[in-house]
Amino acid sequence: MSYQAPVKSMHYLLKYGVDIDTVLACPDHSETNHELIGDILEGAGSFASDVLAPTNWTGDQNPARLENDQVFSSPGFKEVYASYVEAGWQGIAMPESAGGMGLPQSIAVATNESFYAANMAFGLCPMLTASAMKAIEAHASDELRATYIPKMVTGEWSGAMNLTEPQAGSDLGPVRTKAVDNGDGTYAIRGQKIYITWGDHDCADNIVHLVLARLPDAPEGSKGISLFLCPKRFVNSDGSLGDLNRLKAIGLEHKLGIHGSPTCVMEFDGATGWLIGEPGRGLNCMFTMMNEARLFVGVQGVAIGDRAYQAALGYARERVQGRTIGAQDTIIGHPDVRRMLMDMKARLMGARAINMATAVASDLALSHPDEDTRKAAHIRDALLTPIAKSYGSDVGIAATSTGVQVHGGMGFVEETGAAQHYRDSRIAAIYEGTNGIQALDLVGRKLRRDGGAAMSALIAELSEIGPLLEKTVKETGVRLGCSRDALKTGLATLTAATKIMLEADEANAQGGASNYLLLCGHIISGALLIKAACNGLLAGDPLAENMQKIAWYHALVVMPEAGAHLDFLSRAGQVLFDYPEAALGDL
Amino acid sequence: MSYQAPVKSMHYLLKYGVDIDTVLACPDHSETNHELIGDILEGAGSFASDVLAPTNWTGDQNPARLENDQVFSSPGFKEVYASYVEAGWQGIAMPESAGGMGLPQSIAVATNESFYAANMAFGLCPMLTASAMKAIEAHASDELRATYIPKMVTGEWSGAMNLTEPQAGSDLGPVRTKAVDNGDGTYAIRGQKIYITWGDHDCADNIVHLVLARLPDAPEGSKGISLFLCPKRFVNSDGSLGDLNRLKAIGLEHKLGIHGSPTCVMEFDGATGWLIGEPGRGLNCMFTMMNEARLFVGVQGVAIGDRAYQAALGYARERVQGRTIGAQDTIIGHPDVRRMLMDMKARLMGARAINMATAVASDLALSHPDEDTRKAAHIRDALLTPIAKSYGSDVGIAATSTGVQVHGGMGFVEETGAAQHYRDSRIAAIYEGTNGIQALDLVGRKLRRDGGAAMSALIAELSEIGPLLEKTVKETGVRLGCSRDALKTGLATLTAATKIMLEADEANAQGGASNYLLLCGHIISGALLIKAACNGLLAGDPLAENMQKIAWYHALVVMPEAGAHLDFLSRAGQVLFDYPEAALGDL
Repeated sequence: MSYQAPVKSMHYLLKYGVDIDTVLACPDHSETNHELIGDILEGAGSFASDVLAPTNWTGDQNPARLENDQVFSSPGFKEVYASYVEAGWQGIAMPESAGGMGLPQSIAVATNESFYAANMAFGLCPMLTASAMKAIEAHASDELRATYIPKMVTGEWSGAMNLTEPQAGSDLGPVRTKAVDNGDGTYAIRGQKIYITWGDHDCADNIVHLVLARLPDAPEGSKGISLFLCPKRFVNSDGSLGDLNRLKAIGLEHKLGIHGSPTCVMEFDGATGWLIGEPGRGLNCMFTMMNEARLFVGVQGVAIGDRAYQAALGYARERVQGRTIGAQDTIIGHPDVRRMLMDMKARLMGARAINMATAVASDLALSHPDEDTRKAAHIRDALLTPIAKSYGSDVGIAATSTGVQVHGGMGFVEETGAAQHYRDSRIAAIYEGTNGIQALDLVGRKLRRDGGAAMSALIAELSEIGPLLEKTVKETGVRLGCSRDALKTGLATLTAATKIMLEADEANAQGGASNYLLLCGHIISGALLIKAACNGLLAGDPLAENMQKIAWYHALVVMPEAGAHLDFLSRAGQVLFDYPEAALGDL
Repeated sequence: MSYQAPVKSMHYLLKYGVDIDTVLACPDHSETNHELIGDILEGAGSFASDVLAPTNWTGDQNPARLENDQVFSSPGFKEVYASYVEAGWQGIAMPESAGGMGLPQSIAVATNESFYAANMAFGLCPMLTASAMKAIEAHASDELRATYIPKMVTGEWSGAMNLTEPQAGSDLGPVRTKAVDNGDGTYAIRGQKIYITWGDHDCADNIVHLVLARLPDAPEGSKGISLFLCPKRFVNSDGSLGDLNRLKAIGLEHKLGIHGSPTCVMEFDGATGWLIGEPGRGLNCMFTMMNEARLFVGVQGVAIGDRAYQAALGYARERVQGRTIGAQDTIIGHPDVRRMLMDMKARLMGARAINMATAVASDLALSHPDEDTRKAAHIRDALLTPIAKSYGSDVGIAATSTGVQVHGGMGFVEETGAAQHYRDSRIAAIYEGTNGIQALDLVGRKLRRDGGAAMSALIAELSEIGPLLEKTVKETGVRLGCSRDALKTGLATLTAATKIMLEADEANAQGGASNYLLLCGHIISGALLIKAACNGLLAGDPLAENMQKIAWYHALVVMPEAGAHLDFLSRAGQVLFDYPEAALGDL
């Protein structure tokens, strides 16, 4: 169950698929160059393989335990966490002013992909710390920031997001947890939160909880929700840790996967909290961290999918069975096994490209010197985030399923490890907003609200890949016919689908949202792979030929899948609601 | 976690989708009519809901145990098994001459769907008994048949298939288990078998093992394999049970799902066995049971998918979250939730229709008075079996995944039960020949070997649905435009794809086989639903309108997916093998 970070693939895509050079050209990143990127990706890859990966199966088989109000993490996790802190990975994308390394998000997407692949359950802890830290950095008072950020940047203290309650999940409006002003600048928080990832554990010295709660006079619904910071342990004025706050884990979920990640029921029993941001603006503050977390869930999908791919590849290279027609005697010489591997590889590469494109947009939104470019990049980031989250997680689930299949009977036996990836990956389509919620976000907020401007800009940019392809054919002589056809058809499909979604009534728009998102994912990922192949071929990169073959498979198998959705989009609501609800339980 | 057999849907499909009346017209089934069918389906449904379903979760959480060379099944299973035997369900499709009820396989497909849905892990035991019984009935000596069949028909004794060894799975050629002639009409069997479903347990009084083994002078490969019957306990001449045979379970697998089904490592340590059929013809004899088992694995896929559907529907009707735009306040009023349910329903219904069409073909192959019709039906059965197995299992896996998704975070928590369906269903794509093996069987043996004759006959028959649709439009006035378009496009796609596969070289044929099978599944299932809708509408069946809406969704969403595969088929081998094997581990 070893793991090797796909450093070459990641670096190649950054270079040729998503224009990371535009990020490196920003003054914020003037000291980052491709040599440094290579070193960082290699370093993260080694850490993932050598330190994180060996604890993945252990964590699955020995979930975190809750004893005497304290969660004890899986065997070995505490030591791994200490190494993680020591290596300084937590602050990789935090600004240097906040004590971080100040590297672009696009690099963090690549390093974190390695970490999640090596041990997804473990990787959730740093992910939540990073997100919580960003929310605190963006919205908290100077004093709170000074108290918490330095310890979070190192990872000495971790972060947790306390949003969900039994009656408030996808819709946080009905949150009931209460916050009462103590009159001394603090609030007393009372309520129960569920599904709190790494809500308690023994790896970090302190845990910084961000909690959604309602002030006594707050209006009903989402506008009455505020955000509070509740540390597990109080921080003394000299920075040392004091007493325990009145909050604790009172239960752990028994889950399908990510067993090494403690999913806590948290009780806030008059816990002392500090307001973050304005009263009633809690959801907005939370979305600062939520959006970043969404991208990283897409990254998790690709990560765990790639780990499953590596395991399947390793098995296919060892297992002898039947007479092959390929050059190899092992089952990798069977066309259908080769097909499964190629399918995993192409889809994962495409989803990875979308993740990276999203991260590049977020980098430019933050760091580009030109304000218009920053604005456009911010809009692009917002548009791509739900696609990255959903498509990455769906591709990851599909890849882990194919990974089980390559193993045959061995895949269904837990000891092989393929089954764990299948179980672990499933959560990515659910948390941080289900994929259905992402689809509604895409179609509602990101597409229809601006009349399709953001999507039009993206389509326009993807349309430039056509001339790039022609140029590549002309200059290199490489045949790219299938990619040309798929790109042309794909962009026409995306354009047509976008028009349908813009003109749709609310039922059609919501009913077709998931299909539209999937369609976007297929086409954008395929287009980015073609772009990556062309740019690499033009640059004479020796790996470009392989990327071109991945893009070829994608153009033949994945991109055409987008076309199947068009007919449905224009009458989704009608088809869905026409079937009598009462008869759904029978014919 | 309740379950209600979809009796209306099953009976409707039998009537209008797969022409069960042609089976009822056979002399063998002259006593079977629709009233009886209705009663049987209701009876099986009640048994499934009341007796089997309550043990499903128990079995998952309390897997079978191996202690002192004996496997003890999950709590409650022994009692459930006794009820199963008492109710007489085991012999439902066995001929009356062998002590069975003599009902058509098409009815058994429906009753077993209920049983598998209620408790798939449990249902595997009767499934293997049925298959083993058929192989014994077809190939064993009169004495063996007289000794074993009567006890197996009742279910008092169960059956097990001992095929796989660590080096011999998809390819059984390398089987090493040895059989040495004892000179008294028996053989001494020595070897180890793995993945033996219900290989040992404490539910039945005896277990009848069918074992593939090699005689001392046998040639290498699959032609040197013979089939032996080894009972767990010897049978005395008066029919009473004697000593234990020299065979036992020496290990149980720790699996992703179907925990209630003991998957045994079996050791045959000089076990006494009796030859079944000719020496060297073991695989042929085994395929008698294998083919039937394959259909029933397809049934399992639909079964567990339907259970997941029912759970998702139940949750969607209860859970309140967010503002809906449908008529309901619960999440079933959200278009995207409705879409997930409809998608599960339509795909499951389509796969169910394929299962039933396969069973009808096998019934006609056995019982039709006309020899040519029997022959044609046998060929149809052979053609549809790999599609039923693969498509049914794939649709099942997809449905259980969607079922988890409908539950949101609750779906990932094991206690909800949605996760169990997801875990359980995954095996169906693997056992009884992986879905990749099914695809090779379809394209190699069933399509290319007869030059496409069987598929042409099927396409010709499906083409009659076009005129049926026009007749329905004309006589009933129901609008069926989308179905008309999808049927036309679908049959053209199927015809084109078939032509490509017939003309393909071996690498293309094998490389495209899985995509071709999926394409067949989408189109055949959609066509059968349209047929079911039309026939029902013409008959004035009040449920026909709902079937028509399911077919409508299928025509808009599922059938169009077939079109995506065409481009790939004609160059599958090239695309797959062009990527350098050595670079698969990296870019």
